[in-house]
Amino acid sequence: MADNRKMWSDLGMNLELHDQLCEVLPQAFGDVFLSQENRPEAMDYYNMVVADIHGIRPAELIEHQKKGGKVFGTFCVYVPDEVIFAADAIATGLCGGSQFWVPGGEKVLPVNTCPLIKASVGARLDRTCPFFRIADMYIGETTCDGKKKAWEILSEDVPVYVMDLPQMKRAKDVQAWAEEITALKDQVEEFTGNKVTAEKLAAAIKLINDKRRALDRLYNCRKSEVLPISGTDALVISQIAFYDDPARFAQMTNKLCDELEQRIRDGVSVVPAGTKRIMLTGTPLAIPNWKLHNIVETSGAVVVCEEMCTGTRYFENLVDETKETVEDQIQAIAERYMKINCACFTPNHGRIDDIFRLAKEYKVDGIIDVNLKFCNLYDTEGYFVERAMKEAGIPVLGIETDYTDSDAQQLRTRISAFVEMLNSK
Amino acid sequence: MADNRKMWSDLGMNLELHDQLCEVLPQAFGDVFLSQENRPEAMDYYNMVVADIHGIRPAELIEHQKKGGKVFGTFCVYVPDEVIFAADAIATGLCGGSQFWVPGGEKVLPVNTCPLIKASVGARLDRTCPFFRIADMYIGETTCDGKKKAWEILSEDVPVYVMDLPQMKRAKDVQAWAEEITALKDQVEEFTGNKVTAEKLAAAIKLINDKRRALDRLYNCRKSEVLPISGTDALVISQIAFYDDPARFAQMTNKLCDELEQRIRDGVSVVPAGTKRIMLTGTPLAIPNWKLHNIVETSGAVVVCEEMCTGTRYFENLVDETKETVEDQIQAIAERYMKINCACFTPNHGRIDDIFRLAKEYKVDGIIDVNLKFCNLYDTEGYFVERAMKEAGIPVLGIETDYTDSDAQQLRTRISAFVEMLNSK
Repeated sequence: MADNRKMWSDLGMNLELHDQLCEVLPQAFGDVFLSQENRPEAMDYYNMVVADIHGIRPAELIEHQKKGGKVFGTFCVYVPDEVIFAADAIATGLCGGSQFWVPGGEKVLPVNTCPLIKASVGARLDRTCPFFRIADMYIGETTCDGKKKAWEILSEDVPVYVMDLPQMKRAKDVQAWAEEITALKDQVEEFTGNKVTAEKLAAAIKLINDKRRALDRLYNCRKSEVLPISGTDALVISQIAFYDDPARFAQMTNKLCDELEQRIRDGVSVVPAGTKRIMLTGTPLAIPNWKLHNIVETSGAVVVCEEMCTGTRYFENLVDETKETVEDQIQAIAERYMKINCACFTPNHGRIDDIFRLAKEYKVDGIIDVNLKFCNLYDTEGYFVERAMKEAGIPVLGIETDYTDSDAQQLRTRISAFVEMLNSK
Repeated sequence: MADNRKMWSDLGMNLELHDQLCEVLPQAFGDVFLSQENRPEAMDYYNMVVADIHGIRPAELIEHQKKGGKVFGTFCVYVPDEVIFAADAIATGLCGGSQFWVPGGEKVLPVNTCPLIKASVGARLDRTCPFFRIADMYIGETTCDGKKKAWEILSEDVPVYVMDLPQMKRAKDVQAWAEEITALKDQVEEFTGNKVTAEKLAAAIKLINDKRRALDRLYNCRKSEVLPISGTDALVISQIAFYDDPARFAQMTNKLCDELEQRIRDGVSVVPAGTKRIMLTGTPLAIPNWKLHNIVETSGAVVVCEEMCTGTRYFENLVDETKETVEDQIQAIAERYMKINCACFTPNHGRIDDIFRLAKEYKVDGIIDVNLKFCNLYDTEGYFVERAMKEAGIPVLGIETDYTDSDAQQLRTRISAFVEMLNSK
């Protein structure tokens, strides 16, 4: 940990402020994770990653930079990591999941901005996130009003390159997105000095697909009635996927899945038979935002799926690996990413179809539709989501929350009532 | 007025609810407008239009429909009226400026949505706006998260066609916007059954440019130190421009300008020499939202310019009238509309340049940067606007408000203090 302090100091971080975060995180992790019973043994890896989340991976990124490599920070599941890794660079997620960072963001952003954006900007400006200090360039996108304008503020402090995501999903919009990916490739090539060849891009497509395949395998285990892993554990794995080395992440997650599949064969479940199975839909839950999973899973139910950016929207659908030219590969990448059904698109009917499909695949008893406060997109779309579920007879609970703990008791009351209702059906 | 009631009833309006609006509007108009001293005589026209705003123009639109013409409802200064009028159709603004309509919108939209969007949706769903009842089709756009998703709700009730506005202003984005305008033309042609020829489009370009020229002439009068018209009167003219027949509006506004220019020659000002000149920047003020102008102008200052959609963003820059093919005309239209500097673009440096230019042209003493509550775009951009003004030594007051009267007293206190500060400089 002494090494970490030197690293953080060298990164120009605000050590005093950062210490406050380091003091509370282990306790929070212990309370939420280590108190769970019958956890898979292979969770040890993720425990270790979270325990030293501002140490191990940042050190690796800095090592990469010392060898002349570049690091790109990204915020959104639409930014294609493939193009970045193909230029011998590393893409990493950035901090944004704790109330700790929110006040820093509120210094420059409207209070009526979603906590994810406020936390991200605060983490950067307050110098309390090593990933934000390390990244040589950030890749933003135009997925929502709040982020679109936040890039302008961040770009005064650090290089930000913004991709213009189309707002619809017509054929020409997929083409426009392919053009944006090509422009990103040009930018990444120029910034790294490395050429993105068809061979390198093929390898990067395979690398990221392997990560998706591992997550898909993990989520498949969660479809089983013998549930071998808690939602809380699955969530933190999804969260770590944004930061970790993709090859190692896939390897460790496949190792975990070996254990989980054995548990399914052995009939080892983390919950008693008949425990109500909950799917969360809506806005992302960035690390260390474990609030809802913790409440659900200490209220007698279990989370089996997240239709979220930290969930199925991150790993579903693979990039076609058979293309042989950079142009065709980029087309394939554009097509895969445009299959993600985010509320930033209008209309976004595909998302309702996704939720119905997932509810069936994961044998869901009830849905909690989660909105991070001031996310107008998911909040408005919730009108359609909740109506569609009700019409289909799927119990649904709409919840709005932020990163504070002030609503935890109220959420617990509402979620408990929801679970009780499911149990009495 | 008996005719109006029959018309409203035929339109399927909720007469009982609408009566409540009709009861308060004349009083509000009288309090704000008719109490002003030394108004130009030619304001009589606009007084009449407002007094019967749900009667005269709706009757004309229905007359147009009886002759087989179509009416398109629009929400935003980016939607090119030229294309609609070129198909022998009429474009009209829609209701959205009163708290009266907000609760109806809140039935289906998040409370954390800006009042303009909530009021628009409420006016439609509660059936209390004749323009919303008359329009055969609405043309939406992807300018902000709130509107983008609100179209999805409206489209369940009425045909909505959405244009995808690019989020940046690179050369390829202007081309993308030209493509969207071509797609709108195709849609309008199909819906009306009328072909948009180069001849008709040229006439429509001239028609809308003439309206812009009239507004430009009006605003030029406001640059004079001999101020011949109040900001409150100029605002209502800007608001009416969205609804009125464009040719008649230009004619009546030019007639008013004859009088205003004579006033300038005669040294007739509506305010005493030395009255502090205020520019409002920010979000639009839809009719009947006169709150801020009224407060400023009863606090000893005067509004000389609105850098708003209901202001300079509506009329500045003309469409090139020399193009001879539909393709070239659409290109010219795209170029003109992409010169509008809305906070929905990232980045949007041009807007800061506009504000500096306008502050100089209109001899502005102070700026009030106005944000409609929950408009994240203008709120975030306000960070840059207010900083730039402060750095340039231009006094600026940032204000957030909605359509309720609950903050009127607080706003009056803050604005009075701002004017007092300007007076003491």
